[in-house]
Amino acid sequence: MTYEAPVKDMMFNITHIAPNPGELEMAAAVLEEFGRFCAEEIALLNASGDREGSRCDQGLVHTPVGFREAYAKYLEMGWQGLSHPSEFGGQDLPRAVGAAAGEILNAANMSFALCPLLTDGAIEALRHFGSPQMKQTYLPKLVSGTWTGTMNLTEPQAGSDLALLRSRAEAQEDGTYRITGTKIYITYGEHDLAENIIHLVLARTPSAPKGIKGISLFLVPKFLVSADGTLGQRNAIRCQSIEHKLGVRASPTCVMEFEGATGFLIGTENAGLEYMFTMMNAARFAVGVQGVAVGERAYQQALAYAKTRLQGRPVDGSAEGAIAIIHHPDVRRMLAHMRATTEACRALAAFAAGWQDTPDVAMAEFLVPLVKGFCTEMSVQTASLGVQIHGGMGFIEETGAAQHYRDARILPIYEGTTAIQANDLLGRKTLRDGGATAGRIAAMIAQTEVALQQGSPTAQEISARLGSARRDFQAVVAHLLAASTNEAYAGAVPYLMLAGNLVAGWQMARAVLVAEAALARGEDRDFMSAKIATARFYAHHILTETGLQRSRVIDGAASLLDAVF
Amino acid sequence: MTYEAPVKDMMFNITHIAPNPGELEMAAAVLEEFGRFCAEEIALLNASGDREGSRCDQGLVHTPVGFREAYAKYLEMGWQGLSHPSEFGGQDLPRAVGAAAGEILNAANMSFALCPLLTDGAIEALRHFGSPQMKQTYLPKLVSGTWTGTMNLTEPQAGSDLALLRSRAEAQEDGTYRITGTKIYITYGEHDLAENIIHLVLARTPSAPKGIKGISLFLVPKFLVSADGTLGQRNAIRCQSIEHKLGVRASPTCVMEFEGATGFLIGTENAGLEYMFTMMNAARFAVGVQGVAVGERAYQQALAYAKTRLQGRPVDGSAEGAIAIIHHPDVRRMLAHMRATTEACRALAAFAAGWQDTPDVAMAEFLVPLVKGFCTEMSVQTASLGVQIHGGMGFIEETGAAQHYRDARILPIYEGTTAIQANDLLGRKTLRDGGATAGRIAAMIAQTEVALQQGSPTAQEISARLGSARRDFQAVVAHLLAASTNEAYAGAVPYLMLAGNLVAGWQMARAVLVAEAALARGEDRDFMSAKIATARFYAHHILTETGLQRSRVIDGAASLLDAVF
Repeated sequence: MTYEAPVKDMMFNITHIAPNPGELEMAAAVLEEFGRFCAEEIALLNASGDREGSRCDQGLVHTPVGFREAYAKYLEMGWQGLSHPSEFGGQDLPRAVGAAAGEILNAANMSFALCPLLTDGAIEALRHFGSPQMKQTYLPKLVSGTWTGTMNLTEPQAGSDLALLRSRAEAQEDGTYRITGTKIYITYGEHDLAENIIHLVLARTPSAPKGIKGISLFLVPKFLVSADGTLGQRNAIRCQSIEHKLGVRASPTCVMEFEGATGFLIGTENAGLEYMFTMMNAARFAVGVQGVAVGERAYQQALAYAKTRLQGRPVDGSAEGAIAIIHHPDVRRMLAHMRATTEACRALAAFAAGWQDTPDVAMAEFLVPLVKGFCTEMSVQTASLGVQIHGGMGFIEETGAAQHYRDARILPIYEGTTAIQANDLLGRKTLRDGGATAGRIAAMIAQTEVALQQGSPTAQEISARLGSARRDFQAVVAHLLAASTNEAYAGAVPYLMLAGNLVAGWQMARAVLVAEAALARGEDRDFMSAKIATARFYAHHILTETGLQRSRVIDGAASLLDAVF
Repeated sequence: MTYEAPVKDMMFNITHIAPNPGELEMAAAVLEEFGRFCAEEIALLNASGDREGSRCDQGLVHTPVGFREAYAKYLEMGWQGLSHPSEFGGQDLPRAVGAAAGEILNAANMSFALCPLLTDGAIEALRHFGSPQMKQTYLPKLVSGTWTGTMNLTEPQAGSDLALLRSRAEAQEDGTYRITGTKIYITYGEHDLAENIIHLVLARTPSAPKGIKGISLFLVPKFLVSADGTLGQRNAIRCQSIEHKLGVRASPTCVMEFEGATGFLIGTENAGLEYMFTMMNAARFAVGVQGVAVGERAYQQALAYAKTRLQGRPVDGSAEGAIAIIHHPDVRRMLAHMRATTEACRALAAFAAGWQDTPDVAMAEFLVPLVKGFCTEMSVQTASLGVQIHGGMGFIEETGAAQHYRDARILPIYEGTTAIQANDLLGRKTLRDGGATAGRIAAMIAQTEVALQQGSPTAQEISARLGSARRDFQAVVAHLLAASTNEAYAGAVPYLMLAGNLVAGWQMARAVLVAEAALARGEDRDFMSAKIATARFYAHHILTETGLQRSRVIDGAASLLDAVF
């Protein structure tokens, strides 16, 4: 199954949806070229990689056929550095462009893309909290992709709950630490793509306070690095086994044993959780983008199938013979649902990415759980619709639709489940500031409503829907601010789904303003008309879910808290 | 992962929800024993069968280890005949009991259960349309399970669209037919569980009219049967290969070659489609029950995990250490959603099954697409929530939660996709009688609302929700009756989901009436209180979706028909 990067839609978002456009010509050229590269070199390994999977043999992990060569080309062309600082060899492109590039790589091959994704997280953490010497030693190699990065958080007894971490770090006389413990679910914890792997590892020092306040962050390289930057001794780290997973099978998910490995403290002791949050915010945002990516890939595949599969006559009797199934109303409904969801989530991600390049931290942070929670939950639905459109063929693995359904399923789980995102949105980002950021968003949305009311009848229709969804949001925020703790958290996930839907639908509504203005100037007729049609579908079929979520939050808490098992 | 048949809930439905109770003591005893049998002999083969899969080797299919022995015991104990006529060796139990037994077998092992499920379909077709001699030759062997049955409909170019069938049947001088063609997706088309396989095959005679009016149904046994009932010559049928599928991997899905095989006409030529519909109605209902089954199995597994997995502190600060995740509000929400959905779908199936034992054909047939469409779509959601509750563990295949997510995905596809069910509900069952049956259902629901208004505050709350959903249904039916063909079919699936949700939610509301009366008599406190709590959750969290579906049908048709791809 081929893949074509939706660069036009991405550039629309970068230009009109992200709050700070940046240098557009450069961005378009980069995305076009990256799209070609991913379509030609990476996308074709998606199905074969899934079939073959990675293998672990005596502590060594072998990625599927073709991955090494593809990674070598990725490295050679310098793609890893796209949105990283030029100081370390990157290209300094805006976040919204980085998000688009991330979507392309993940749509081409999510299993492959996980390796660069984790490297991005490590770069982010070292940039912010690494010592100058650490930065100098590690960042150029990570930014070029010569070395890759990992995040080592989870342990068998400590998943969402990092307070339960047990891995130990003992200070040595030379200033290093000896790291001991078992970490699980370590993506690309071991592999054969790069010459070194830089593990960022959470562990406790012997004197650390209990719970989350006693966690420190360490840099633990697979091969120790000499003063001159060359690779030295193999560190005492071992990949014990890799998991047999539902999806992203080409990506090795490792059980890692740290057996007194040499580690280097990042920042200060016991501040690890704060550092992790920086890395996690970047990773969470990136996982939301993976949701957009798998949705787009599933949509392209379903659309191609629906255009060529002949089956059934038109319900209105307008033809005698069998027609392509894309002409059946329910197939159109499913395709439109996939497309509208994916475009709205892409716009949401671009919008959120843009805010990350502004000083408005509160806004940027409010949007992260929406991108992670909403885009990933929707991607599971979208991939499922992709299977459905294929009918029986969708259930046969060779078709490829089922892979997206399997791959997507991890997205609402890793880097914090949807409930973890929802608790973050509710507790840290809504209740803590008394609903101030939520209120700012509602006020901006109300302005868009007013602008739409000056537009076409379609724009006015969408304004009405948007207003109704915005009022649902405000009612829910007011309710949550007044509710008891248990009542409020009972509604956390429906609140997240409502807020994500609203902010995504708002971007589609903003897109209508842009598109109507472009049409009035006679520009880009096909693209702009399609954008309006898609926004209208979103408003009528998806944005309408906010009423349901509102009632779940406000009227549904009691029956949830009283549930019997 | 163990399984325990929810016999108490099944008996509640058989006694209070199905319109015609039948002999209850016998039913309870049978279900208890069948539940034990399935838990001990069949359920344990679910994960191992999935891992191993069936194999096809030179036209022979080998089922996974343990399947032959388990089937032999199933046969020996006479379970296949539960709800088939005593005239052919069955036990003549009511349909609602048969549905409960079907759920148990499928919850234990859906891949295993598919073989008996298809045999049931063949029995149904032969009972109604076979000649007396055919019945005498084949039915006792099928009812005992000594031989198994299949349905051979699909061809590579003809899935949902049977008008495109090409398989040929040429009449011979001895009254038999020579059957030639390729059939795909034939469940248990070949296997090693039974000594003979009775294929029911759709094909065209040379003189047949084009399209669906030229299809005939043939009985084509794997081994021809001699006059004295012993097995004779091997027929010219070959299993070419089996599919590599997303789920139900232990169940062989065969590509079957009919190479001039000897077949026997069932009924008259060119009436095959009518006969298929009888068989399909039974099979569609049975697939809906599979949805309940996989939902129940996923729920039991998620509940057990949530009770034992320690992670995180309570949001309200009521404990210091890590608690079982079942105490977290969102885990409760997901479990309650799984439970309420599964109980409501079980009640819907029992209700529908009961009507099949009455002369009210219109009502029975109206309910079939609801059971097939709604219960299967919901099962995909339920299985997905089951994965989510397990967090990262849910994505690891060894845990077992992922198998349910994979297995469930076929249910909204085979035996007619959800869109096919929705078109059936809309065209044949709603528009054709001018909404009469839909109106009768609405009137019965309104009576339940009145009865609930006499009950507790909870009953009154549920009455209000039910009334609101019923009015959504009536508004949608009125809209569909007046709409253009394309507009109406654009809303077919949302209409089906609305109607299924309403009728399922209505059964939960009826259950509240029964439960409050029982509590007033001091009976069965725990069970009845839990039933009320579950019904209340359903009313607040799931039944509320009818408003969304209403707006998709009524306001959403235009944006769907105008969608651009």
